[in-house]
Amino acid sequence: MWRVIATWPFSQPGVQEAARFLKDGSCVLDALEHGICAVEDDPTVDSVGFGSFPNQDGQLELDAAMMDGDTMRLGAVAALQGTKNPIRVARAVMEKTQHTMLVGAGAQAFAQAQGFEQVDMLTQEIREKWEKRKKEETGCFGHDTVGMVTLRDGHMAAGTSTSGTAMKIPGRVGDSPLIGSGFYVDNLVGGATATGWGEDIMRGCTSYAAVEYMREGYSAQEAAEKAVARTHRLIASKGKKPENIAVVCMDKQGRFGAAANHENFAYVAAGDHDPVTVHPVTPLKL
Amino acid sequence: MWRVIATWPFSQPGVQEAARFLKDGSCVLDALEHGICAVEDDPTVDSVGFGSFPNQDGQLELDAAMMDGDTMRLGAVAALQGTKNPIRVARAVMEKTQHTMLVGAGAQAFAQAQGFEQVDMLTQEIREKWEKRKKEETGCFGHDTVGMVTLRDGHMAAGTSTSGTAMKIPGRVGDSPLIGSGFYVDNLVGGATATGWGEDIMRGCTSYAAVEYMREGYSAQEAAEKAVARTHRLIASKGKKPENIAVVCMDKQGRFGAAANHENFAYVAAGDHDPVTVHPVTPLKL
Repeated sequence: MWRVIATWPFSQPGVQEAARFLKDGSCVLDALEHGICAVEDDPTVDSVGFGSFPNQDGQLELDAAMMDGDTMRLGAVAALQGTKNPIRVARAVMEKTQHTMLVGAGAQAFAQAQGFEQVDMLTQEIREKWEKRKKEETGCFGHDTVGMVTLRDGHMAAGTSTSGTAMKIPGRVGDSPLIGSGFYVDNLVGGATATGWGEDIMRGCTSYAAVEYMREGYSAQEAAEKAVARTHRLIASKGKKPENIAVVCMDKQGRFGAAANHENFAYVAAGDHDPVTVHPVTPLKL
Repeated sequence: MWRVIATWPFSQPGVQEAARFLKDGSCVLDALEHGICAVEDDPTVDSVGFGSFPNQDGQLELDAAMMDGDTMRLGAVAALQGTKNPIRVARAVMEKTQHTMLVGAGAQAFAQAQGFEQVDMLTQEIREKWEKRKKEETGCFGHDTVGMVTLRDGHMAAGTSTSGTAMKIPGRVGDSPLIGSGFYVDNLVGGATATGWGEDIMRGCTSYAAVEYMREGYSAQEAAEKAVARTHRLIASKGKKPENIAVVCMDKQGRFGAAANHENFAYVAAGDHDPVTVHPVTPLKL
């Protein structure tokens, strides 16, 4: 029995790829890596991996993470430059070091030492868009993350990859590479991953909260709703307007759910008896 | 009514300083900043701020974070070079940007732009020790963090500062600057901060777990014990030997507690009716 779930319709080729690996008998970590790579490699996705929208200084700094729900091992990278597939570097952090997170120039040096090819990460099209935006002096915009959870026969993995908000301050890190905020998974319970305004997701440790709701016995759908509602209300109770927050969840039996505090969120899922399908999400009434 | 609590006996001058500010009527954020600065400035503390033990490449990369329990605002920096007081930069991230975390070269550029003096962070003594260690080719060692929680009349703040493990891989980030793992605080409940092997603390989101135990009604002492035990057992259940994990907690009424899964942990506390006192912690039986 296998399942895969991911945030946003743009992850469809990634879910297709992860499903292909799972169908062929690959482990959940391989499926997750190849699934997320497919989204990173897609230049039409301008918020994940190669060809994404760069920061204020015109540099593309990428964040990614991978967690193994069987061992609770994890690897994360943040503000990584020059490597096409940050999810692969995150996996190398998990498997080749005793550490869990590398950032900035140190992460890049590690990637180089591990043999990851160093490339120019900006497409001509993105470079032109960036120069136009720079002149217009618009602020940050856009902040979509591929977050994915994979399952095969009780073994689960979760991962994320993003370029963060477009035109961000150099060095800015959101929730995606942070355990508990952007992702969390435990084989005994389930996994979750978040997308939206990372600064607000961090305040609620939203992915950890979602998994803990499943641990308490809530369904994946209830857990997603409660985690989003809780983070939203926590922020609102402090007098701040909550920004976009969305979560996708899968329990250890492969039942999934999702919730968002805003319009236009949708996720993609597939399984051994289900083709790749995009599921629109009705915003929570909060 | 005011209280302050911090990890490790080396934080005594920091608690003294925070207490001085709280006594003089300062807000919890100012007290926290000055308290943590006092530890960062102390060259005899070789795991926090100026004069700490550098990474494998001989560079000192510092992590720090500050969170305001009233607004849930936070600021964090990781792998920050060249600035004597990373806690001050973390506070500037919180107060001067719409973001919550800056890392690496971007964090340093931000610190420079904010007018923080750029200094050589290594003392002659540390440089000599580093060269000796480098020749011996010993691995990582030492990983002590100042974690502090301050309270005045229902307003709480939490913060951390560390150089991470000595001889770490460049760019390595532990739990200290990560919300939920190294620190968490909510005025309505209480605050917590962790110290130990960051990679294991991250797996349990230990500080968030401690605050959630207080939210459920457990005392600060029970919450600290349950958060450490839970993280320890989670890791052990996955077949890995848990490394050192310690937590200090304070609830919104100023009652505090602490727990560790290892020998030799102690914390420091003070309040309007209590002088600065070091409290040894008996290891949990796990």
